[in-house]
Formats: sequence, structure tokens, C-alpha cells
Amino acid sequence: MKIPESIKKAIRSGNESELQEICNSLHPADAAAAFTSLNEEQQIQFAQFLNNDALSLITSFLPASESADLIASLEEKDRTVILESLPDDVVTDLIQETDEDQQKTYVELLSDEKKGAAETLLGYPEDSAGGRMTTAYATLQENMSVKEAIETLEETKEDAEILARIYVVDENKRILGKVRLRDLTFNAWSTPIKDIMDHEKLAIRAEEDQEEALKMMLKYNMLALPVIDDMDRLLGIITHDDALEIQEEESTEDLEMAAAIAGERDEEGYLKSPVLSHFKRRAVWVFFLAIVAILSGLVILNYESLLENVFILAVYMPMIVATGGNTGSQAATMVIRAMSLGEFTPSEFFRVVWKELRIGLALGALLGALIAIGSWILITTFINPDTLKSITGGHDLSDLVITVGIALTIQVSASTFIGAALPMMAQSCKLDPAVVASPAITTIVDVLGLLIYFGIASMMLAI
Amino acid sequence: MKIPESIKKAIRSGNESELQEICNSLHPADAAAAFTSLNEEQQIQFAQFLNNDALSLITSFLPASESADLIASLEEKDRTVILESLPDDVVTDLIQETDEDQQKTYVELLSDEKKGAAETLLGYPEDSAGGRMTTAYATLQENMSVKEAIETLEETKEDAEILARIYVVDENKRILGKVRLRDLTFNAWSTPIKDIMDHEKLAIRAEEDQEEALKMMLKYNMLALPVIDDMDRLLGIITHDDALEIQEEESTEDLEMAAAIAGERDEEGYLKSPVLSHFKRRAVWVFFLAIVAILSGLVILNYESLLENVFILAVYMPMIVATGGNTGSQAATMVIRAMSLGEFTPSEFFRVVWKELRIGLALGALLGALIAIGSWILITTFINPDTLKSITGGHDLSDLVITVGIALTIQVSASTFIGAALPMMAQSCKLDPAVVASPAITTIVDVLGLLIYFGIASMMLAI
Repeated sequence: MKIPESIKKAIRSGNESELQEICNSLHPADAAAAFTSLNEEQQIQFAQFLNNDALSLITSFLPASESADLIASLEEKDRTVILESLPDDVVTDLIQETDEDQQKTYVELLSDEKKGAAETLLGYPEDSAGGRMTTAYATLQENMSVKEAIETLEETKEDAEILARIYVVDENKRILGKVRLRDLTFNAWSTPIKDIMDHEKLAIRAEEDQEEALKMMLKYNMLALPVIDDMDRLLGIITHDDALEIQEEESTEDLEMAAAIAGERDEEGYLKSPVLSHFKRRAVWVFFLAIVAILSGLVILNYESLLENVFILAVYMPMIVATGGNTGSQAATMVIRAMSLGEFTPSEFFRVVWKELRIGLALGALLGALIAIGSWILITTFINPDTLKSITGGHDLSDLVITVGIALTIQVSASTFIGAALPMMAQSCKLDPAVVASPAITTIVDVLGLLIYFGIASMMLAI
Repeated sequence: MKIPESIKKAIRSGNESELQEICNSLHPADAAAAFTSLNEEQQIQFAQFLNNDALSLITSFLPASESADLIASLEEKDRTVILESLPDDVVTDLIQETDEDQQKTYVELLSDEKKGAAETLLGYPEDSAGGRMTTAYATLQENMSVKEAIETLEETKEDAEILARIYVVDENKRILGKVRLRDLTFNAWSTPIKDIMDHEKLAIRAEEDQEEALKMMLKYNMLALPVIDDMDRLLGIITHDDALEIQEEESTEDLEMAAAIAGERDEEGYLKSPVLSHFKRRAVWVFFLAIVAILSGLVILNYESLLENVFILAVYMPMIVATGGNTGSQAATMVIRAMSLGEFTPSEFFRVVWKELRIGLALGALLGALIAIGSWILITTFINPDTLKSITGGHDLSDLVITVGIALTIQVSASTFIGAALPMMAQSCKLDPAVVASPAITTIVDVLGLLIYFGIASMMLAI
């Protein structure tokens, strides 16, 4: 029997002790995963059957929206116990997920210490360094001895996360450096902290974007990044698991923007968020791009007589448009990704654009030649000359395939150029380069492609 | 003066001590970033000017391909010193980046201990758990006391990473549990390890994909994940910074596949990899999709008489095609991302498809209605009746805008359905769902959209 099934069975049969037994035998992360697969009614029973210790453990592995629901289903005294047992950044996430009128009630349930921490964290936007941080760290003073330091830390030794980050601070809570637990373990008790600390002061300001925090942690290979206020006082730290979460959020955001999906991902996940919320995130761009795409239609209307005379041009039209879209979004993706990995900045505009122009020219010229020659061979071999004459309007086949080849070359070069240039221009205007990702670029190069194609055809065929 | 500029200046003027001073004042990660911005000749001089201690520090912050180049430029005795100073997973990455004929020479330069570790790691594919792991961990036996444990660990206390992961193993190196350094620090020297260890045995087999390792670390919130062989013996660990790297690689891969970019990302980065290597990664899909797009052209050719009679249909053609592409890739991106976050599996096919169908129908029907009504109002207001007659072929405008509205509704529903269904089908066939991401889906729904549009038009207008 699979785990969620056995849990469902225990809940259905009201077998409290069996459910407790199953959950005790599971890793809390697995119990949390099982919990999320239950329906609302089952979740409430699940919470009633388990004691607060088990619930606290499971809650810390749940997505914030799920744990908010879980806590909401509990009685007030159980709520207090569980909220108090959670790390303060988890409590903050959970409170942020709660309805606004409930938020105050939750904060009131917390002990004074936790309340202070939660209020500080709630004061920063969710996606800033301050909104991400936790206050689970330890501080020591420079003039302590190893013995005094160990005594200070002993009080908090059970708080799993704290001892991995021990900062040495001055009387104003400004960071002077770090001490590692091993330095305390392997040094004589009389050694002054001053002698064994390092002097690394890397930190990030609370109001900075979470993405900046991630970049610092990646660059300097940090396990934890201190967060400071504008007086340089230590406020909290961002941990390695926050870094993973930030990275996941940011890459989901990039992927979604590249697919014309707007707004923030629902914390509830794909299956649980309602159709309407999916609809809202997709409709904005789809409607906007559809209206812009009518421009392409107007270009076609403008060249009506050309198309009606030489109908074969219509056959190549989707290919020229689609290829421009593909090469444009390739260039945009490459450039956006490289910028977000910090490989270059818009100051290297010309180097990047020059590289993309060469790539675009190579792709366009080769594809153009292949399509032109391939078409010529296939058409002269398989198409009956009368049929051909009716769709070429009597124009020379060679002129037509050369038109297609040249249009492809120019369209691919132009769209590669635009795909690279627009995100860099957005970045220099302090916009997220991903806003001009694939969908916007595809729509622009669609219109452009038709103008290029029909423009060249008019010249080549002298119509 | 910016940092890379001052470094370049020191190199140009051959000022060895100034370069050393600059590098000493920088965080090694910043020095490494400056190094990557130098040209090849400058890099060689940079390496010559610095002593081995400084170089080792900087090397550990360089991308593998850059550090391979740096090491290749050194004399053999310096190579030995630096290779020996690096963590074994960094050495392995670096050797993997070296030309094959050089790899053996490098392994020979290592001490016996490092050589063994490197050979084990090189035996696994680069993107498997085994290829990612490091051997920087410590082991203890269950029957040791805290005092014996501290004595055992004292030898390795300077190896920065080891003390964060202390595993308790049996005589066959099978994991029995973990001990934290804090448990050793805060317990009496006589306490047996058995009493303070936990019994967590979560581990991953060496041949598993690195993505599985990341998923485990995310789910169980682990700082390090043990890697075992098929006899359950501990081989190494995957660390939190590996987890970040794996996540970055995987999300870059997803983004690139969504933009029709094939193959592996160049380790050298965007600017340094040659035009030819960019060309190769982009040409495959672009050429393939261009040829498939000719199918759309053939559909247009097939409806030649319809289009020539009712030219206004051509005006809406790009919009119907592009909107299908956009909604199809939205659905694909949502589904692929949700699957890669483990939110559902293909077993929930019908639930997902049902959700997407409703979203698609809502998007399509609303957009269809808007475009139909909007067109009718704009055309009757602004277009001269004679012009209109020439492009509608005498058909009733209401019939035409209703055709467009219905075609949009069906096209958007169908492409949303296809966008969701194809990646799930790929996943159930054990393929990476991202292979059927946006570009493939766009191309399919392009052809489909034209068939739907012209099919409906033929029926509605009875042509």
C-alpha cells in the first residue's frame, strides 16, 4: 500500500493511533508530502489526530500556503505551540500567506521574542533580502574567550540552525567577522575569540532584491549571508536553503516570462490554484499579443495584389515568419541567461551584438541557400509546369527561390540582432530583461519578417 | 580605477608586487572574476606573477574550463602544488575539462590519496550523483567516545568542508547515522558516539541523475547528501553548493530547450565560446522547424481559392496562428515546470488536461468574442463598403467575424490541450518533457491552426 493511501485509510477509519504510527515511521518531509495530497476535510482530521510535536515537524516541511491552512484549522492553544516551534522565517512566510485580518491575531499569539523577529521580517517586501532572512544566528563579542563563547552558545545548542553561523559583532551589532564552531572545539578554552575569528564582513542590505543575495552567495560560495540595515547593524541571515528557493523562484519566473505568462506563481501550486487564477496569468499577454498580431495581417493586406499574382509566395510565408521567431527567441534566451548569470553587462553591447549578427548571418545564409536550392530541385522535379505557372504568376522560378533565400537571410540576421539587443536595452533601462523575452520578440519579428519578405519580393519581381 | 583595469595595468607594466597587493586585498572570488575578464596572454602573466597560495585560492572560485586553462599554463611543479590544494571534486571537474591526452598526466601529478578520489569520481558520468560528489567528509565509528571522535577529527580540522558532515559508519562503510560537531562540542568527553548520533540514513546511489540528488536535498532540506554504491557503502557527499549548481544547470537547460537551443551549454560562457559553437547549438532546431513550417505553407496552398476569393481571411491568419503558439507554449511551460517541481506526475493526466481544457476554452472564447465584436465595429465604422466588398468576396461581414471567433476558440482550446498533453506523454515515455517544449508545440499548432481556420471558413462560407 502506498503511503498516502495508508494515511487516507487511517483517517477514514478514524484510527488515530495508526495514523500517528505511520507518521512517526516517516521522515517529516514525506509526511508533509502525504499531507499535501489530502483533500481539505482529510487535512483537518490529519491535524486533529496528531500531537503538536509531530505537527510542528511536519509543518516546517510544508509550503507556506499549506501550513497556513493547517494552522488555521487548529484551536488557539495548539496554534500558539506550533507557531512558537517554527523558525521565524517560516512563521513569517506563513503569516504572509494568511488573510490580512488574521495576520494580527497570529502575531499576537507569538512570544515577545518571536513577535519582534516576525514584525521586523514582515516590514520588508517578500522578495527582498530582509523579507527572506531568518534571525537564527548567534553572536559573540571580540573580547570573549573560547570558554565564555561556548557558555554563551550552550543555551541555544538545540536550535538546529544557529550554530552554523556565529558572527562576532561590536556593541552596535556591526559585523566584525565570523567564528566557526570548529575553531571553538579545537582551541584551548583560554584562547581569545579575537585570535581565531576571521574578518570577513560580506553582507547585504535588507532592502536589496533577493536575487542580489543569491548572486552574492553563489559568487562567494557562502553558506549563509548576513543581512544588515542602513546603519550596518546585523538583522538576520539568508541561508543556503533560501538560496535554493530564490534560485528556483527566479528561474521559474524567467521560464514563465519566456512563455508569456504574467504575474506571480501561485504558492498553492499548479493543481490547487483555480482555473480563474491560471486564466488571469495567461490572458494579459495572449490578448495583447493577439492584437499586435493583427498588424501582421495588415501587412499582408497591403501586399494583396502581390500575393494574388504570385501565390507561391504565400507558401513560404509561415516558414519565414516562424524561423524569425525561433532565431529571435534563441538569441534573447542566450543573452538573458548570460546576463542573469552575470557573464556580461549591457556595457558590452557591441561585443554581444557583433557576435549575434555573425551567428544570425551564418544561420540565415545557410538556411536560405538550403531552402532556395532544395525548393528549386523539388519543384522542377515534381510540379507540373502548368500548375507552377498558375502559382508563380509567370515569374521565373529562380527569381522566386532567390527571393525566399535572401528574405530568410535578412530576416534571420535581423531577428537575431533584435533578440539580442532588446533585452540588453531593457537591462540598461533598469527593466527586467525578461519582459522583452520570446513572446514580445516573436511578435515584433513576425511583422518585420513580412515587411522584409514582401519588400524583397516586390523589388526582385518588379511588382 | 575599476579592479580589472588596475589589474590589467599592473600586468602591462610588469609590476609583480602591485598585482600581488591588489589580489591580496580582494576576496579570492573577486580576483577570480577579474581573472576571467583578462585575455589569454594577460591570464598567463597573471598566473606567473602570483604565488601558489594565492593561485590556489583563486582557482577554487574559477569555472572549471578557466581553471583548466590556468593550470595548463603553469610549470609542472606549480601544477602539482595547486592541484593538490584543491578539493577533489574541483580537481575532477578541472580534469574533465582538460584535453583527453592531458587527463592522465594530471592524475599522475596527484598524491596517492587524491589520485584514488579523482579516479573514483572520473568513473561516473559528469551529471550523475557520483560525478558530482566530493570526498570531503569525515567518518566515525559508533563505539568511539566523544574524546576519541574529537581526536580523530582534529587531524582534518583545517579542511574547511569536512567538519560540516560527520557520518557514523560500520566496518563496511555503510551509513549508520550522523553526528553534528555541536554534539561533540557540548557533550562530556566520555559520552559514547552511539548516544548522541541520529539515525538518518538518507542517501542516493552514485549512478542516479544529479537532478534526483537535487530533488532529495530540496525535499528533505539537507545541507549534504551522502552518495553510496550498490553495496550501500559511503562514497562521497553532494554539498549545498553542488545543489545550487545543479539547479542552475537544470533550469538553464529547461530555458534553452524552450527556446529551441540544443545540446549542452558551453562551460566557457557566452562571450568566450566561438560563433561556430553557438551556431551548432541553434542550427539543429531552426533548420528542422523551418522545414516543418513549410507544411503550413502547403495548407495555405491547398486553400488557395478560398483565400483569393475572401482575402480578408488572410488578415486574421497571423493572429490565429500566433495566438495558438502562445497559448500552447504557456500550457507546456506550466505543465513542464509543475512536473519538474514534483507537483504531479503523468498519472494525473486527466486532471491536468481537464484543467487546461477549461483554461483554454475560457481564453479562446473570450478572445474570440472580443476580436469578432471589435472587428465588426471597427470595420463597419472605418472601412468603405466598396473596399470591404473586394476583400470579403461579397460574403456577409457577420459570417466572417463569427468564423474568426469560432476558429480562435477552437484553436486556443486545442493548442492549450496539446501544450499540456505532449509534455506529459513524453514524461510517461521516460523522455525529458522539455523536448516537446514551446518550439515543437508552436510548430505543430501552427499547422493545426491553419487547418482549423480554413476548415471552419469553408463550412461557414460554404466554399
